[in-house]
Amino acid sequence: MIIQIDFNSDEAIYVQLCNQIILGIATSQFREGDQLPSVRQLADTIGINMHTVNKAYSILQQEGFVKIDRRRGAIIATSLNKLEALREAHDMLSVVLARATCKGVSRQEIHELIDEIYADYGDI
Amino acid sequence: MIIQIDFNSDEAIYVQLCNQIILGIATSQFREGDQLPSVRQLADTIGINMHTVNKAYSILQQEGFVKIDRRRGAIIATSLNKLEALREAHDMLSVVLARATCKGVSRQEIHELIDEIYADYGDI
Repeated sequence: MIIQIDFNSDEAIYVQLCNQIILGIATSQFREGDQLPSVRQLADTIGINMHTVNKAYSILQQEGFVKIDRRRGAIIATSLNKLEALREAHDMLSVVLARATCKGVSRQEIHELIDEIYADYGDI
Repeated sequence: MIIQIDFNSDEAIYVQLCNQIILGIATSQFREGDQLPSVRQLADTIGINMHTVNKAYSILQQEGFVKIDRRRGAIIATSLNKLEALREAHDMLSVVLARATCKGVSRQEIHELIDEIYADYGDI
């Protein structure tokens, strides 16, 4: 998969890296058991510091998206705690919806955005 | 409005403060032109540092939720840039949906969560 980092973004590079890998799993570009590039390899490819890649990988591990294998490095391994995932989604959506509502975005528009994003998954 | 801060949360207090105020605007507990408590007053009430409140207020100002008036302090004033708000909602939702999808949460469940959150708005 191609990992796109926006160096002009306000978002920290390790956060962008985590989000891109999570998007890759969601869209089946990465599958359970797939090996991620080594820290050095990914750092070299993107042109970022190895510490940044390391930080992203350990957050992904903490959050249950990858496992770190001593020999194979970072492996896609999503822990399926559905209840926790629903709670997390609820909390994150609450923030997004509150921000959107303040700025005049309607409930209908949010539902449409959701469908749009899922439709994009099909195209990747 | 009652501002609830979770001191055990991983989320920084200024972020929680911003989110609570944004939620207050979304649910009409704060209305356009309403005056927020002074920095000192809010810091004392919650039992946090004045710098933390200051940081939250300036982020809310940058993001177009409040204006800082020299005499009246922080005033609710949402800048309605709908296109920008839709873009922001799209980007934030993309992250939430990718995370949820990896953990087995379905599109249907996301739509239901959205309706649940909007239903809660009515109850506040």
